[in-house]
Amino acid sequence: MTSYERVLRFALSKGIVFPSCEIYGEAPAGFWEYGPLGVRLRNRFIEAWRRELVRRDEMIEIDGSQIMTKRVFLASGHLESFADPITKCRGCGSIFRADKLIEEKTNISVPERLSDSEISMMLEDRGIRCTNCNGELSEVTRFNMMFKVSVGPSGDEAYLRPETCQSIFVDFLRIYKTTTNKLPLALCQIGKSFRNEISPRQSILRQREFYQAEIEVFFNPKKADEFDKFEQYKDYALMLQPLNEDKAVKVTPSEAVASGLISNRLIAYYLVLIQRFYERLGINRESVRLRQLDSEERAFYARESWDLEVKTSLGWLELVACNNRGDYDLTRHMEVSGQDLSVVDDGERIVPHVFELSMGVDRSLYLLLEHLYLTDSKRTILRLPYHLAPIQVAVFPLVDKGELTKLAERIYNDLKVDFDSFYDSRESIGRRYRKMDELGTPFCVTVDHQSLEDGTVTVRDRDTMSQIRVPASELKQRIQRLLEESWGRACDRGLGES
Amino acid sequence: MTSYERVLRFALSKGIVFPSCEIYGEAPAGFWEYGPLGVRLRNRFIEAWRRELVRRDEMIEIDGSQIMTKRVFLASGHLESFADPITKCRGCGSIFRADKLIEEKTNISVPERLSDSEISMMLEDRGIRCTNCNGELSEVTRFNMMFKVSVGPSGDEAYLRPETCQSIFVDFLRIYKTTTNKLPLALCQIGKSFRNEISPRQSILRQREFYQAEIEVFFNPKKADEFDKFEQYKDYALMLQPLNEDKAVKVTPSEAVASGLISNRLIAYYLVLIQRFYERLGINRESVRLRQLDSEERAFYARESWDLEVKTSLGWLELVACNNRGDYDLTRHMEVSGQDLSVVDDGERIVPHVFELSMGVDRSLYLLLEHLYLTDSKRTILRLPYHLAPIQVAVFPLVDKGELTKLAERIYNDLKVDFDSFYDSRESIGRRYRKMDELGTPFCVTVDHQSLEDGTVTVRDRDTMSQIRVPASELKQRIQRLLEESWGRACDRGLGES
Repeated sequence: MTSYERVLRFALSKGIVFPSCEIYGEAPAGFWEYGPLGVRLRNRFIEAWRRELVRRDEMIEIDGSQIMTKRVFLASGHLESFADPITKCRGCGSIFRADKLIEEKTNISVPERLSDSEISMMLEDRGIRCTNCNGELSEVTRFNMMFKVSVGPSGDEAYLRPETCQSIFVDFLRIYKTTTNKLPLALCQIGKSFRNEISPRQSILRQREFYQAEIEVFFNPKKADEFDKFEQYKDYALMLQPLNEDKAVKVTPSEAVASGLISNRLIAYYLVLIQRFYERLGINRESVRLRQLDSEERAFYARESWDLEVKTSLGWLELVACNNRGDYDLTRHMEVSGQDLSVVDDGERIVPHVFELSMGVDRSLYLLLEHLYLTDSKRTILRLPYHLAPIQVAVFPLVDKGELTKLAERIYNDLKVDFDSFYDSRESIGRRYRKMDELGTPFCVTVDHQSLEDGTVTVRDRDTMSQIRVPASELKQRIQRLLEESWGRACDRGLGES
Repeated sequence: MTSYERVLRFALSKGIVFPSCEIYGEAPAGFWEYGPLGVRLRNRFIEAWRRELVRRDEMIEIDGSQIMTKRVFLASGHLESFADPITKCRGCGSIFRADKLIEEKTNISVPERLSDSEISMMLEDRGIRCTNCNGELSEVTRFNMMFKVSVGPSGDEAYLRPETCQSIFVDFLRIYKTTTNKLPLALCQIGKSFRNEISPRQSILRQREFYQAEIEVFFNPKKADEFDKFEQYKDYALMLQPLNEDKAVKVTPSEAVASGLISNRLIAYYLVLIQRFYERLGINRESVRLRQLDSEERAFYARESWDLEVKTSLGWLELVACNNRGDYDLTRHMEVSGQDLSVVDDGERIVPHVFELSMGVDRSLYLLLEHLYLTDSKRTILRLPYHLAPIQVAVFPLVDKGELTKLAERIYNDLKVDFDSFYDSRESIGRRYRKMDELGTPFCVTVDHQSLEDGTVTVRDRDTMSQIRVPASELKQRIQRLLEESWGRACDRGLGES
């Protein structure tokens, strides 16, 4: 069983994630649900994102509609170019993504900018046929990956957003004016995006409906090096993999900017912020890299691109695409909407540039599971930082009997409103601890015979397995403090370390 | 200016909500965005929902995909019957919702079950014509309010869910099996739903894309009166408006169940829970009612229906539809999917019944603004319970000068990761307090000359306007405690009061 299969089996059996509409066997692939533990893990992840990125950096969060009018995507370029090349078997009707099929069959990578007829030619030249029935393949055509919807009885054309950032670009000027009225300004959003993938695969790694968390930093390109926040992280150990290198090396932001590897201080600062975010979630620095993309790999509007990737059993997995998008987005929306989205900065009227950090949330959660669902000779533990655990505290009576049960239930009822709590009275206490270890629960509270005498209970720590006695009346404060200390620990590890 | 207009102007000017794609003037109506303060208010509302409903009642939260396969809606009945009657002007092409047009012109309410030809007849009999050009109107047809999408290159038919509950029904058995394995089981979900309204209106009150929070309680109908949780609320003062009454009266759950006004204890308990929820958000009990619906008003599958409504300047506003849906949903999904969704309860195999509480989130937020955005002779205050405030703490230097500014910034930076914080150094201190009052900020921390000497700062309370001096080093704990006490206050007010 591969690591991927192991994680997926764990996620399915515990109800963390599972396929959407599964009672309807023929439902289209690429849609998944978060179950009880999955929702909580996702909520904790979002809370970490809000805490360590949004609030720490004083970003401004918005929440835009998912259905947006056609002209937004005329401006963004998605209507014209957000399309994959496909070919259809003239025999059995199977549909393939043409470039992927060529790559699969010949190990030749197909550059993104090839035209449909060039790809058709490649298929023909290499004698590639249907993998299903060996039939002849059709000419290559384009399949747009946006989901189209028709709005109102008049049928206005609109689309489900393929990325959350378009709301941010469209709303930029209103937010700018009603908030700080100055640059740089980091706007962000977490929410659903939709891509009509031809072949969704690998469960929550490539879905048709998925969560993105995107940050768009609007800045004056002339002032991208006048950026005070840079100072606090200038000696951080960025894991950078420059063009044409095959592995990452530790480089400080100071060095990277001085050598021109990173083009300015603002970008260097945000690359630290995002790498640091994953380290704080419990991912080893050695498993993270920021890989520079060359002009072939970059999106056409991007001037500088770094992918934050993390090592997994499936290879390096892209979690965050970091792109200097220049003034492409605002300029295009100005052209198509006819509205002036420029602002005055430092006495000069400019169209702000944008540095984007576009995070895949679902795949980040997969990654946490793969990296932290660990088995040693004694136990299986989901070794999430305590503040990310889906169940924060479990309450057990040592044995399920009379007064013990009553007291345990009372304690559970006291805690459950403030914490994600779990009550269990079946099986041996050892098995109950093991079950909680596997779900990553940091604290198990056990009510035993001494509890009936002196009102204390034991609190077992997941990682050390040590138990301390605590008055039941102090539990709430103690757990709260322990969870807060967990944020603190994650903090210290990342901060200033080099 | 009406209250509605006043609230909307406030919301727009402060960036709480605003129309989607507004730089594209012709974008379809019915889509709105949450701005910086709106996102935080919504987040706090969701936190209240999780705390006071989900965790308190030990519900299980899931998060399903928004795009669902066609057969789900074949089963739910939406494909066939989730459609409004429309008529089109043969002259100018304007489209009208036929029943609403008749009601507007004649004050006669059109029963939901009239056929298209019966409605056409009503239009003709009453000589109703186009309100735009006085042209002749077409025969009535049906317009389905679901947004259809086509999935993958083969074009599988799917829909954006018109209600979040369908994921819950479809996922019921998997969740039941991977969690408690017993009834009653309350599953819930908060997320986007989509309805292709013919005439979206009143900003966030009737949108095409909106947030719902739905609770589905699966229960054994034979055991709906064996429900221990009922005890704690049996004397609560429910505000019930029975059929054929024109106002609500206080009735306890005990009385309501004994007289048969509410059909069982389980339903009575959940009606308390939902009324109490709004009271805890700061809504007066006298402004809330649970109105019983008659068989004409009820959805066809519902056996007992109560709408939780709150008094507003626009009349009574429906916030939560509470329906005993019987076994309609699971039975239909069993029929269409061919899967057995029954469970064994009390030794008997049954298809669970469902009591639903379906909450509109956006309109609940509107309601909070209308009820709590208050002006008296001295101040305008957004009188949200402290734990719902979008900005939790503001930090000011008394005057914007040297050491005072530096210390204030340091304190702000210490607080901002843990709280939604705001820093301001412009204008007089009085104006800064007033600005925070208007946004509902409970605590303003001011750094003054004494602060430089003894390290204390003043903390101003929004409601009492009193100030206390606190050591800056204790601020974090103090604010945390004050916010927690606010949860407690809201608690006590609702709990057991009659």
